[in-house]
This record gives sequence, C-alpha cells and structure tokens, in this order.
Amino acid sequence: MPVFTEESSPEMLQRAAGLKTPPLPRLTPCPPVNTARTADGAKHEVVVVGAGPAGIMLSLMLSRYGISCLPVELVTAMIIPGQADGLQPRTLEVLRQLGLSEEVFTQGYANYRVAFWNPGGPGEPPLVRTCVTDDVTVPARYPCKLLLAAGRVVNILERQMNKYGNSVERGTDFLKFELVGGEFPVKVFLRDVATGREYSVFAKYLVGADGAHSKVREQMGVKLEGESTDYLWGVVDAVLKTDFPDIRKRCAIHSNAASIMAIPREMIENQQYMTRLYTQLEDNTDATSSVGEGDARARARARRQNVTLPRILEQVKRTMEPFNVEIVKVDWWAAYQIGQRVATNFSLKDNEGTERVFIMGDACHTHSPKAGQGMNVSMMDGYNLGWKLAYELLGLAPQNALLPSYEFERRDIAEQLIAFDNTFASKFSQKMGENGLSHEDFFKVFHTAGGFTSGCGIEYKESKVVEKTMIPALNNSLNPDLGLLRAGRRLFNVPLRRFSDDAPCELHDVLPATGHFAVLVMLPQNFEDSAVQEKLEYLLASLPQTYVRGIVEPFVMHPRKSNDDVEWSMFPKALKEDWEWNFSGDVSGHAYETLGVDKSMGAVAVLRPDGVLGGVYALEELKPKGKVENYLSNNLTTQ
Amino acid sequence: MPVFTEESSPEMLQRAAGLKTPPLPRLTPCPPVNTARTADGAKHEVVVVGAGPAGIMLSLMLSRYGISCLPVELVTAMIIPGQADGLQPRTLEVLRQLGLSEEVFTQGYANYRVAFWNPGGPGEPPLVRTCVTDDVTVPARYPCKLLLAAGRVVNILERQMNKYGNSVERGTDFLKFELVGGEFPVKVFLRDVATGREYSVFAKYLVGADGAHSKVREQMGVKLEGESTDYLWGVVDAVLKTDFPDIRKRCAIHSNAASIMAIPREMIENQQYMTRLYTQLEDNTDATSSVGEGDARARARARRQNVTLPRILEQVKRTMEPFNVEIVKVDWWAAYQIGQRVATNFSLKDNEGTERVFIMGDACHTHSPKAGQGMNVSMMDGYNLGWKLAYELLGLAPQNALLPSYEFERRDIAEQLIAFDNTFASKFSQKMGENGLSHEDFFKVFHTAGGFTSGCGIEYKESKVVEKTMIPALNNSLNPDLGLLRAGRRLFNVPLRRFSDDAPCELHDVLPATGHFAVLVMLPQNFEDSAVQEKLEYLLASLPQTYVRGIVEPFVMHPRKSNDDVEWSMFPKALKEDWEWNFSGDVSGHAYETLGVDKSMGAVAVLRPDGVLGGVYALEELKPKGKVENYLSNNLTTQ
Repeated sequence: MPVFTEESSPEMLQRAAGLKTPPLPRLTPCPPVNTARTADGAKHEVVVVGAGPAGIMLSLMLSRYGISCLPVELVTAMIIPGQADGLQPRTLEVLRQLGLSEEVFTQGYANYRVAFWNPGGPGEPPLVRTCVTDDVTVPARYPCKLLLAAGRVVNILERQMNKYGNSVERGTDFLKFELVGGEFPVKVFLRDVATGREYSVFAKYLVGADGAHSKVREQMGVKLEGESTDYLWGVVDAVLKTDFPDIRKRCAIHSNAASIMAIPREMIENQQYMTRLYTQLEDNTDATSSVGEGDARARARARRQNVTLPRILEQVKRTMEPFNVEIVKVDWWAAYQIGQRVATNFSLKDNEGTERVFIMGDACHTHSPKAGQGMNVSMMDGYNLGWKLAYELLGLAPQNALLPSYEFERRDIAEQLIAFDNTFASKFSQKMGENGLSHEDFFKVFHTAGGFTSGCGIEYKESKVVEKTMIPALNNSLNPDLGLLRAGRRLFNVPLRRFSDDAPCELHDVLPATGHFAVLVMLPQNFEDSAVQEKLEYLLASLPQTYVRGIVEPFVMHPRKSNDDVEWSMFPKALKEDWEWNFSGDVSGHAYETLGVDKSMGAVAVLRPDGVLGGVYALEELKPKGKVENYLSNNLTTQ
Repeated sequence: MPVFTEESSPEMLQRAAGLKTPPLPRLTPCPPVNTARTADGAKHEVVVVGAGPAGIMLSLMLSRYGISCLPVELVTAMIIPGQADGLQPRTLEVLRQLGLSEEVFTQGYANYRVAFWNPGGPGEPPLVRTCVTDDVTVPARYPCKLLLAAGRVVNILERQMNKYGNSVERGTDFLKFELVGGEFPVKVFLRDVATGREYSVFAKYLVGADGAHSKVREQMGVKLEGESTDYLWGVVDAVLKTDFPDIRKRCAIHSNAASIMAIPREMIENQQYMTRLYTQLEDNTDATSSVGEGDARARARARRQNVTLPRILEQVKRTMEPFNVEIVKVDWWAAYQIGQRVATNFSLKDNEGTERVFIMGDACHTHSPKAGQGMNVSMMDGYNLGWKLAYELLGLAPQNALLPSYEFERRDIAEQLIAFDNTFASKFSQKMGENGLSHEDFFKVFHTAGGFTSGCGIEYKESKVVEKTMIPALNNSLNPDLGLLRAGRRLFNVPLRRFSDDAPCELHDVLPATGHFAVLVMLPQNFEDSAVQEKLEYLLASLPQTYVRGIVEPFVMHPRKSNDDVEWSMFPKALKEDWEWNFSGDVSGHAYETLGVDKSMGAVAVLRPDGVLGGVYALEELKPKGKVENYLSNNLTTQ
C-alpha cells in the first residue's frame, strides 16, 4: 500500500526472534552475576548434571521461568545414540503446551495402532494376526505414540532453551558435591574434559539427571532397590524390506521361535523409515529370581558375551517366518537384561532439613524399554520438579512448601512403573501356552495398563499440593481415565469457544506452560444468580490482591450452547477489563460432560503449573477462607 | 535400561538439527563455487532483491530445492515495521506444508469471526451490532485469519531458510542489472551500504521483490497501470482499553462519523494484545478519478500533510462513540491513500526470448490493505515462481516449459485482486446510505469475495501446466470453493486413514512441500477389477522409468469404509514395495464426497509442487500416451 507517513515504536524492531514466555516474578534477590558461568566459584541457583530427557526438560523449564541454571553434560556430541524412542500421549500434551509439538510431529513418526500376532492353530499359517487395536486405550489429545530418537527429542528442547538464553556445558564431568552451608550451600566439583581443568561452582540446588549409573546418586548414598530377571534381549533399529503386512504398525509377535516387539520409527536422513525390533534371545522359563549378587545375574553375565548383531538378526528372521525380512541398514543395536529398580530416596537434605540435592530420570528408576516409558517418566520428573524449584527460588511459595512433594509424587509413579513393567516384561518374555499364558492374558495386561503407559492416567496421592475432596457436582461414577476432574490427575483437554472473539480453542492451549497456577471456574447454567456472581466477583477481586501479581489466573467457563446467549454485561466488570481472554463457553457441550461436572451446580478447580489438578471444589468454596483460598495460601506466598 | 553392548551407525550423531527436506535431483552441472558469495564476479543461479514476504518465500523455496540463491535486502534490521499483518487460510495451508504452522499460530493471533456495526435506527443506540459471522466464508483447513506482523512472519521463514544453509545479505543495495549473455546472463550491480563497496555478481535469473517502488521493475521498463482514489486513510496498531464488546473480533464499523475496520492482533512483548484500526480520515463522496499526474492526486498530496496521529485517534474515538476507547500504547501508525495498480509485465526476456528477470509482490501490484491480501498474494507469487525456477535450473522440465506460466498465472490473480479491492475499498469508504449503500450490499461484497480473499478459491486459467477437462466422474454441480477437484485450484484438504499403519492423517500432510509432482489416484469401489489394477500397475511401473527418479510420486486412495476391508495382496506388489506410505483409505467417506468424485468411477489428478491441480482425468487416462502421461511429459523431463 502507498504509505506517505509512518512511525513505529522502538520495541517493534526487537520482535524478530519471536516472543518468549515471560519469566515468573521474583521476590528474592537476583543471583550474583558470574564472571563466567564455569569460572571457579561461580554461583548458580541450580546445577543440573546430565542433559538427557530428564535434565534437559528441567533445565528448559527453569530457563523459561527465569532461574539461573547451569546444565552440564559429559557427552560432547549434540546427540546421543539409540535408546529411548517413544513419546507418550501425556508427554505430547506437555510438548504442545511448550509450543514444540509441530516440530516433534514433523520429525517423528506417530503410531496409532498395534497388531498382535500369535502362532497359528491347526491348519493355519505358522504366524497369524490375532487382532489390531488402538495403541492408546484412553482418550487423549494426541491418541498416539510419537517415535523419535531420544537424542533428537532432547535437541528440540535444547534449541528452545537456547532461545531463553541458556545452553548446555558439554564435555563437563561431574566429580562430586559437598554441602557447605551458606546461601549457596552445594559446592559442585566439575572437570572440563577437553582441558582437564578442575573447578567448583556453588549452587542452591543440585540435580542429578545423570542416568542409571548416576554419580550424584552414588554420592548421596542412595541405593537402587528392586528385582531383576535374567531374560536376555536384543534391540535393533533397522531399515527393513519385508512382506510382513503390519510392519508399519506396532506389533507384539509371539511366535513358536521367540517373541518380538516391532515398533515403526521415524524417517532417517536417507528418507527411509526405521523399525525398532526387540527380541528375546533365549528361552528362560524359570529365570525370575530376586536381586543381589546372586546366581541369576552371574549366569546372565556369562551368557551375554555371546550376544552379537548377527545372532539377533537371525532370531528376528526366524521369529517372523514365514514372512521374509531383509535388513537394508542397521542404525543402532544393543543387548540388555531386564531389571526393575527404584532409588530408595529421590532427594538429600542438608543439616537444616532442607532438600538440596535431587535425582531424576534413570538415576531414580530403571526398567525394561518395551513399553516406551523411560524417556517419558524421566521428562515428567523434570516437569514436576521444575516449577517447584522455581517457586522456592523466586520466593513465590512459603519456604519448603513444595519441594518435599517431588519425591512424594514421583517415587510413587516410579514404583507403579516398575510394578507394571515387571508384569508386562515377563508376560512378553514368555511364549504363548507357557505358564498358561494366553493372548487374552497378554492383551488384558496391555489394555488395562493403558492409562498408566499413556501418562494420561497418572494420579498423584494426597498431599499439600493435591487435596482430594468429593463433591456432589462431580459425576464420580465416570472412569477418571476418560476425563473426570480429579485432584492429582492432569486436566483433560476439551474443546471450547472463547467468548471475547468467539474463536474455537482447546482448554490446554488457553493454559500454556507459563508457570502460573489457574483457578478454573465452571459456572452453573444459572450463572446470573447473584450468589454465583458474588463468588466470581470475590475471586476476580481477591486474586490480584492476595497473591503475587500474575501467578494465579482465573479461567472461567460457561455451559451455554452458544456465546450469543451471553453478554459481558452479565458478569463482574473485572472479567472483561482484566481477564478478557480467560472466559470461554462450552459450546459443544463436551467440556462439562467429559470433565463430569453437573451443569446445574458448576465447580471450581485449582490447576498447578504442571497441568495437574491441585483440588476440585464446590463453587461455594470461592469465598473468604474457603477451600480454594486455603489451598492457594498453603502453597503460594500471600501479599 | 541396563545395556551391556551397544553399537550405532555414524550418521546417527548427525541428526541433531533435525531432518531437512532433501533437495530436488539435479540433471544440470552444479553451479561454480564462489570464493565468497558477495565477491565481485560471484555466480549464483538466482539473485533475489528484497527479503519481504515475496522475496523470503522464494528464497526459502529455492534453498529447500537445492538451488544456489543469493537474497539481498537493503534494510539492515532483522524485522521490518508495521504494514501487512494478516495470513489468509490458503497461506496457512502452505505454511503447514512447510512445517511452520505451529510457530505462526503460537506467535500470532487467529481470528475467526467478524462483526458488522452500523448506525442505530430510531430509538436505538447510535452504534448497533448488525450481525456476527465467520470471517472465512469457505471451508479451509484453518478457517481463520492469522494476525502477525509481516516482519515476524518473514523472520520465521528466514530462520527455516538458515537451516537450509542460506541467509539474507542485509544492508545490500541493488543498483542495476544488465543482460550480458552467456551461461550467467544477468549481471547484477550491488553495493554494500556499510562499506560503500560496489560489486557485481552474475546470475541465471534475477528476481525483484523490492516493493512498491521496485528498482528492478523500473530497470525493466515496466509500468504500473491502474486506478487511484483520493480517499485518505489512517492506520494504527495500538493496545486499547475499551468497553466496546467486540474488540477481539474483526469489526467493520460504519458509524455516522466515519468508518473503521478493527482487527484484533497478536500479543506484543508486554503481554498485551494489539488492535489494528483502519479509519477513513475525510468524507470524499466523489473522489474516484483515473490515475495520472491529475488533480485528484495533487489535491490529496496537499491534504495529507495534515494527517497526524492525534487526528487519527480522535477520529477513532468519535467513530466508536458511545463506547469508550482508551489508547494504552501505540505500536505503529501510518497514513495512506488507496490506489490499485498492476504491473504491465511480470518478467523480462533476454535476446533469445528467455525470461531472465521477474518481479513479484508489491513490485507487481499495489492495493489497499484492509482485506489483508498483500502479504498473502506476495508470498504466493514466490511460492508459484519457486518450483518453476528450480525445475528449469535443475533440468527437470523441458527448457522454458514452465517459466512463462508465472506471469500468466499471477498477473491474472493480481488483476482479480485489484478488481475486488476496488469494489471493497470504495464500499468501505462510503457511509451507510451514501450512494444507496446498505449493510446488505456491503455484506454481500464481503461474503462473495470469500473464496478469493481466503486464497482458497484462487483458480489459474488453462495453460500447459493447467489442463481443464470435464469428466463424468466429477460432480460438477458442486461449488468448487467447497472442495471439488478442479484443475487450476489448490487441492482441498481431506481427512484420510493411511493403509500401512491405519493412522489418521490429512491429505495435505501426506503431500508436504517437497517440490515433487504427485499423481493422485482415487480408486473406484471395485478396485479389484482387472482393468483398474492394470491402470494402477502401469502407473507404478512407468513413473520411475519415465521421469527422473522421485520427482513424481503416486498417491493412491481407496473409497472403502475401513482399511480392514483391504489387504496389500489386492494390489500390484510395487504399491507395498515402493510406495508403502502413499496409500490411504477414505474411511470417513469425506474425501470422495468433498472432492466430488463418483465412487463407482474413481478419478486421477495430477498435482503440481505448489499444491495446485494440474489436471483431473478419468481413470482410463492412466495408460501409455494417456492424458496423464501427456501432461507429465509436457512439463517434465523424460528419461
């Protein structure tokens, strides 16, 4: 257009790199400025050892929240090979709230279906397809598993972290830590591998995300407890050429020769799609034994010298007969034993009883890989710890109110993971007919674990940050895996229509990962009633007055069929003036129904920064000293 | 998991930055290596002048395709202020196929609804809402407009181009070009603004995307033709505080004082949402006049000295009375006159009759901004020219087969744009009642132009790359805006279920912007019929034999209700062996219906790299010397 006069604000030119989520407000003094972040004596609020899925998720979240954080990693390469490859539906929801889902979906491969193959009966071919079913058995925003090498997932997170001004110090070896007291009570000893320079930095908190052989865990004096088997497995990432018809579905194959789990994977640089194959290498019918320096492990150690790539491939071919399997290219392979263990503690306290050192991810829990849990549980460890550390460091929560809940919540999940894995892995290792194993048994284990393995059915136990209350407005007969509002679970995603612009939107998208708490008010049908209006008015007025500005946001939903039946004038003025974006209509009718809320009563829920429901209450609790205020005051600094 | 042996391929470590779309195959010699890309005498296949929406889209596409391309831009800043702000549905579809939609949606604001406000009648308030309707009036994958400053859109494209190893040479002034003959016949004279160094580079093609005052166009001796008015307008991007209830919808406001177009915009760095306001500054009932150095422009020039920000804001407030409008912050403002002009030519031939210099974007067409077309038509100019230049340069098309269609296709669109804009802008500039203008008139212009303004109804005329044929299998009674397969239009997006993994997918996603042609085979219900199988077999066998490997891909669709009713064994072996990913089922039943294809007959369509249908044919044409082969051989190099 032919402009003749033009003037712009100076900030306009600064927006080239795209807007970032603003940091959380800080009530504590800013951390001191270091001459260099790896200078001897440098001070950081948090040092994170390990930049795998757990460590990078934590470091990213802390960077987004505005925390000074030093992530160190021994491995120099920008990408780590092999290992974990699957993102579960709940992890995908979180990545979406971080604005990373398109990149993950574009780079990875989304798997929706799983086929079960078993030995054919009399007169049938040796291997027959018993059934095909959805891989994700509970509703979720993305009802699929996303296959992408852990190293590439980590890298996507790391590139976002770079935009927030943080980067990983690679080639850095963690040597040890000491609790030295003072304002930065954790002294962390590090070594630059390239130069050999040894130095130490000081931190308020140290987090070990340094894998199964965690040196941080070892230093903490924490042990892994659990069981082990001597089932011996091989895993191969390969490009295949095959006439097996279901090679692009996840397949659980129990043949008369052995068992295979085949997982379709992402495209690699030569435009070929990979397949991951897990196969059991020997027949060990009575191999379950308790852990220790016992016989089972010693036997296994002897046997595993023999595991070679040709042996694994030969076994794959034999298991999949009569289909033809040609190996075009092997990208990675490994051999492993199934073992399930959990760390006795996930944190270490200083002399004053404050938790100062944490461990996450494989440092806390090891298990078999076939259910695709490792990367997910690890990332969610980091997602759980991130906001709690940030709130503590920024002074947004009462001292030490949140940190103890990390171990409380995540150790319980790790134990559930290990219990599931134990059942699943052993059933998978068996042949059909062995110990009476039938396809139906195996399918049942697969199906009933769907809530847990998808990450969507995870439920934290009651604590200061999860208040479990029964209220009449909730349809408690609903299966909570299907969306029911329940404290300790993630808030289910539902479609809405925002009021201010009448635009279709998704509940998860209007609640991105900003680090804020939200109070979700689901209005009753008769929201014009003065008692309801009074509650709403109280909430809108009290939030900015009682808590640090911006760390708790209201989010209001009405149950009417159309936004046309609603006008701004029906509500307290503050709704339009201060929270114009935070008001939506359940125009499709799905939200109240799925979340299980009675439209005649409404409900109110408190949502934590990690998308987990902290509490679900009757609308009546929106009053001075009500349960909503009580929950928030227990967990947040009041002004 | 406890791994005891592990081995990985070396390429594995290279995947950190994420996979890129591979370049197109090259049948021509590689361009010479330059000592430096801006060295005097450096040789580039294409030089692009200007890195606005048109130039950056072209440079990105050429970089993705593997073309040596030098984009130069005078402005040093990474972001340009103000101006265009809206992405239309078709542009959003293209950005999705480039893997950029999440970033655009996360940074921008998606607008779905438009409200019309008019003077109240007797006994009504002075300003009343006449109706609210969908902003996008035709079906589209993203039925919204995405508001985001052009500078930020450009930057998102540029960052992807950087991943493909190309970058913009900023602070570079285009001086002139000369046609000098030889292998690199365009000599381009440039100047580094910072150092004053003048130098020249050689190119096979030069593209001017250097805006309304294009120096490339001037050098070509090409004129702009068209009409101008002396309607005087102001435009402001501001953060507002207002009790106007529809401020977060797009609003066409005709009050008794003046007209305003209000457009809700994206969030800026202080977490506030902007609104763009266009307002007419004077009442000019008889201002239409033909262009030239005539009286109308001279009068306007005199008047426009008086345009100031306070005057615009004062007018905004007066127009929106009785609502209160408070200006919190002005981000950008400008004043302009509406004029509609199109360049007489979009390209210049050398002595041998080959087009060597092209212009795109504002260099070709100027018009008023209110319908949000500028950035979109400009980007689509680049998207249209990109693959044609690449095919010519790489030897993938017969010499000069494709390039003439750029001007043929895009000049027609520019003329349609100008005609629409003329009607729309003048109706918008009028008051209700003036010249008999009624809300119904205005609404009708808005509504019927929806196909064009969304970009989804764009239709190219018949040419060598667009073959228009009527076939009985197509339901030609359908409105093509609703999805009907029609040569010259973009292929409509429909949901499918891929066969190999039974995963839900979208037609547009299985056809990303790789630069390939596709042959879309929509099988009839009785696809097991040998006549059908024969056609399919011929296609699958002939494509890799006849054309350069990989530049034409088949994409096959079956019309059955479930993938369970289909087996690989029903099809030629090549379908699974070579094109496992390119076979889907219309499981929802939407695809055949929406695309207008009779399930009993099926159809076949050729899709160009820009997502435009090149031809739609009866299945019978899948035969030696059939129309499909004929179309492809006309436009592609055969082996």
